Amino acid sequence: MKPPPPEIGHKLTIAYRGTDFFGWQRQGEKRTVQECLEAALRTIWGRQIDLQGSGRTDAGVHATGQVASFVAPRLHAAHVVVRAMNANLPRDVRVTTCRLVPPTFHARFDAVEKTYRYLVFNAVVQDPFTLQTHWHIPHELDLVRMRRAAKLLLGEHDFASFTSNPGYERPRGTVRTLRRAQISRQGAEIVFRFTANGFLYRMVRNLVGGLIKVGVGRLTVQEFGRILRAKSRGEAPPNAPAHGLYLASVSYPPLPSRS
Amino acid sequence: MKPPPPEIGHKLTIAYRGTDFFGWQRQGEKRTVQECLEAALRTIWGRQIDLQGSGRTDAGVHATGQVASFVAPRLHAAHVVVRAMNANLPRDVRVTTCRLVPPTFHARFDAVEKTYRYLVFNAVVQDPFTLQTHWHIPHELDLVRMRRAAKLLLGEHDFASFTSNPGYERPRGTVRTLRRAQISRQGAEIVFRFTANGFLYRMVRNLVGGLIKVGVGRLTVQEFGRILRAKSRGEAPPNAPAHGLYLASVSYPPLPSRS
Repeated sequence: MKPPPPEIGHKLTIAYRGTDFFGWQRQGEKRTVQECLEAALRTIWGRQIDLQGSGRTDAGVHATGQVASFVAPRLHAAHVVVRAMNANLPRDVRVTTCRLVPPTFHARFDAVEKTYRYLVFNAVVQDPFTLQTHWHIPHELDLVRMRRAAKLLLGEHDFASFTSNPGYERPRGTVRTLRRAQISRQGAEIVFRFTANGFLYRMVRNLVGGLIKVGVGRLTVQEFGRILRAKSRGEAPPNAPAHGLYLASVSYPPLPSRS
Repeated sequence: MKPPPPEIGHKLTIAYRGTDFFGWQRQGEKRTVQECLEAALRTIWGRQIDLQGSGRTDAGVHATGQVASFVAPRLHAAHVVVRAMNANLPRDVRVTTCRLVPPTFHARFDAVEKTYRYLVFNAVVQDPFTLQTHWHIPHELDLVRMRRAAKLLLGEHDFASFTSNPGYERPRGTVRTLRRAQISRQGAEIVFRFTANGFLYRMVRNLVGGLIKVGVGRLTVQEFGRILRAKSRGEAPPNAPAHGLYLASVSYPPLPSRS
């Protein structure tokens, strides 16, 4: 009898349209991204395999570069895993890449940096093609002021004012380092890009909610800075809706190549 | 008693996401774009008003610049009509502009030129965000050959090979003049643009179906030309799916300004 193939780590990059999912995390009977992916793994490997995502995303939130890992017997080459997964997944979730990695690799614990994008459609009349992908803001936005406010966020800060649930952040606390807080416009589309060594629960949506308030003139740059320094959710502005948010990429330290 | 306001023509520009509509044209109980717009007109004017579209679009086909006209008492300024219509429409159809025009204006009979766009997503792995907006082609496409084939279409031709129902085209016949047949690529997105003095039933989808066959190498440029010259639907390639097609704009002769 041949020995069973050795267990090996698999690192997947995943894109999904969050609209019809109850978020990333498995929750009983609900349709979630993790549950769909684990069902595909079950079909391919013939047994239950636990998948570790780099982090959860809420209901309605999208991903273009979510990362997840699992350990399983080495059955297929990486590109065959991509094809087999996509053949067993619903069309609103796609595996875009697979890499074979050491079995110690963990998508959540090993992540060193994440990038989120947030999309706004800024025009008086809503666009019927971006209902589930952009937050519609019909008011004029002062991008110069928004960028001045965004600059205050760069570097290491206690972001307690911008999480919807500070208690959730133990044991790591609410201090994070933001390396990028970019706002760009192309036509009616405004793109926010945030890169940090980690994000608190709903942090990007809270930041965008505040920055939009600055953009429409209902909050000054100074008041925005004061909210950051207050380190308390108490006076923070309401958060931006889930359907404009995208987990864009997750970074890891260099890995030994196995495929 | 004040006399009733005079009847005046209204020219609307309309955008819709065709996914959840059974096409443009009113059909009994089915959800169609025309029916939604006429329901909004009924709410605003308090009576049935017939709306004339520049032409029908099939189920699943989108529009960014459909034009429609109706005649009704002058109740509101043009910008108020836009706001009132959008307040009474479902979110997947939007009136983007309104112009007050002479009551003789007719969106279909007065149209002199139309532009359609067709969107293709060309990558091995499908994108979960373009499922209802682009035709997914996983194969490599030779755009140089496709453009050579598209060039053959320019000018006046009998396009009978590229309609799904030649009988439908009486009394005007199947001769049309194509002024633009452009193919451009940006990243994974390929955009076709066709401008003509009119289009036969399913003509754009038939043209794109043929050009894609040229692009993947299953039809030579010469064979494509032969299909055009055959003036018969018999040997034409299968048409492209509805969900990649957009009615982009409709042109009219200069109109006297009334608003």
